[in-house]
Amino acid sequence: MTKTLSHTIEVLIRFNEADPLGIVWHGHYIRYFEDGREAFGKQYGIGYMDFFKENVVVPIVHAECKYKKSLKFGDKVIVEATYHPCEAAKIIFTYKLYKKGAPAVIATGTTTQVFLEKDTQTLLLNNPAFFEAWKKQQGL
Amino acid sequence: MTKTLSHTIEVLIRFNEADPLGIVWHGHYIRYFEDGREAFGKQYGIGYMDFFKENVVVPIVHAECKYKKSLKFGDKVIVEATYHPCEAAKIIFTYKLYKKGAPAVIATGTTTQVFLEKDTQTLLLNNPAFFEAWKKQQGL
Amino acid sequence: MTKTLSHTIEVLIRFNEADPLGIVWHGHYIRYFEDGREAFGKQYGIGYMDFFKENVVVPIVHAECKYKKSLKFGDKVIVEATYHPCEAAKIIFTYKLYKKGAPAVIATGTTTQVFLEKDTQTLLLNNPAFFEAWKKQQGL
Amino acid sequence: MTKTLSHTIEVLIRFNEADPLGIVWHGHYIRYFEDGREAFGKQYGIGYMDFFKENVVVPIVHAECKYKKSLKFGDKVIVEATYHPCEAAKIIFTYKLYKKGAPAVIATGTTTQVFLEKDTQTLLLNNPAFFEAWKKQQGL
Repeated sequence: MTKTLSHTIEVLIRFNEADPLGIVWHGHYIRYFEDGREAFGKQYGIGYMDFFKENVVVPIVHAECKYKKSLKFGDKVIVEATYHPCEAAKIIFTYKLYKKGAPAVIATGTTTQVFLEKDTQTLLLNNPAFFEAWKKQQGL
Repeated sequence: MTKTLSHTIEVLIRFNEADPLGIVWHGHYIRYFEDGREAFGKQYGIGYMDFFKENVVVPIVHAECKYKKSLKFGDKVIVEATYHPCEAAKIIFTYKLYKKGAPAVIATGTTTQVFLEKDTQTLLLNNPAFFEAWKKQQGL
Repeated sequence: MTKTLSHTIEVLIRFNEADPLGIVWHGHYIRYFEDGREAFGKQYGIGYMDFFKENVVVPIVHAECKYKKSLKFGDKVIVEATYHPCEAAKIIFTYKLYKKGAPAVIATGTTTQVFLEKDTQTLLLNNPAFFEAWKKQQGL
Repeated sequence: MTKTLSHTIEVLIRFNEADPLGIVWHGHYIRYFEDGREAFGKQYGIGYMDFFKENVVVPIVHAECKYKKSLKFGDKVIVEATYHPCEAAKIIFTYKLYKKGAPAVIATGTTTQVFLEKDTQTLLLNNPAFFEAWKKQQGL
């Protein structure tokens, strides 16, 4: 079984994120995923800013969300972001959303990112050295 | 081969939809999908409003996007939304995004919606009668 | 001098809130104001939800923002929301934004809200009784 | 009386721009103003892109909106953006929003922009030469 690494944050649902049906508009879940991924990145040293410093950007090439239950304005959402190591030069995260204090899963999702050299926008076919070092350091 | 039904619109990329890398933030593609789906709905009589009138809401239960190329502020995007008939009580659309006047696909995606009775939020296990009538009318 | 009541929160700038110039798009400041106002509302018992329970909604009729410095992705913003009592049936807040740990004001703003009866959408010409009671309780 | 220059566009209200009260969230009006301003800019050659080419950026330093009536999902909004010449090195626009086909004003607003040299972020104390030329060309 492959080792994974997770980080969990709480996000507060804004009034302006709920739609006329009173529930959070589905497109905003992509924001919550990014909130979770960036909080993971800050915790473990691989946030957008850390990549920038290495002249690397990591655009999303695939995103997916499965909606199981809805969220309302004022709900406190727990976002769990999990990093999944892979052989390819990619960054794969999965996400689970819960309401605070309730076990039911609200939504699950996944994103895949690739590495581009920032200046030339060239796709990197292998993990950048600093990212390999990071994986080793984390035992991934 | 199953018959499908498509509709195409042009969407203008807003300045505030591009991120610090100068490209459209990936989460906004979900908006463009909805723009395409709603324009289809208006054209063919199955927009959000048409469902409301029938006491039905059609929340998204699955959304997916594959990003192949990026979009910049000022780009004119062509959004092609295609309805895919299915046996189950679901609404399935696929999407293709192009830059106006260029053949390369920028992104593809898919969404799945289910039918809920609006007042009770009960999941409908069969297509509502008006939707079956709509399908027949369209030859789908 | 009229007594005022303030509440302060910290808001984290999202990657997707910065524009191609690398700075936060000016329209998002209206969100930060709302974040501050809602946090004030939770702290002191006059959030959107508290009004709903009383069959009252409080739409914004005026909003204004003065931008003095810019914000970047990753900045931690301090939002100070201050309630200003007034004679009329209105809710007036002012806002000050700072970067965490720095004294310079990033932006200031103000919003004005009125009271509508939720069901009829009728404008209330006097403060609702529960709001008068709240003001008295706070010594305002 | 000072001469002014106006441009008018139609904007379609998105489902995801309406809030749990069923009306457009007040913060989105800032987007409609920008839509109107950018359409004016395209029409008359002073859009964001035109400024970029001249190594100038034009950040908003003041924005204000007065809300008179509400907008709903599906409404077609007419945005009228009017350029107001001024002596200072500033760009001032006012805005009027209508529902298509109805005379009542939904909202009015104003924005003020200044000129910064793009590379150095230095405030320009006088209008850039190309902007003075533009004003002359327009008879403003």
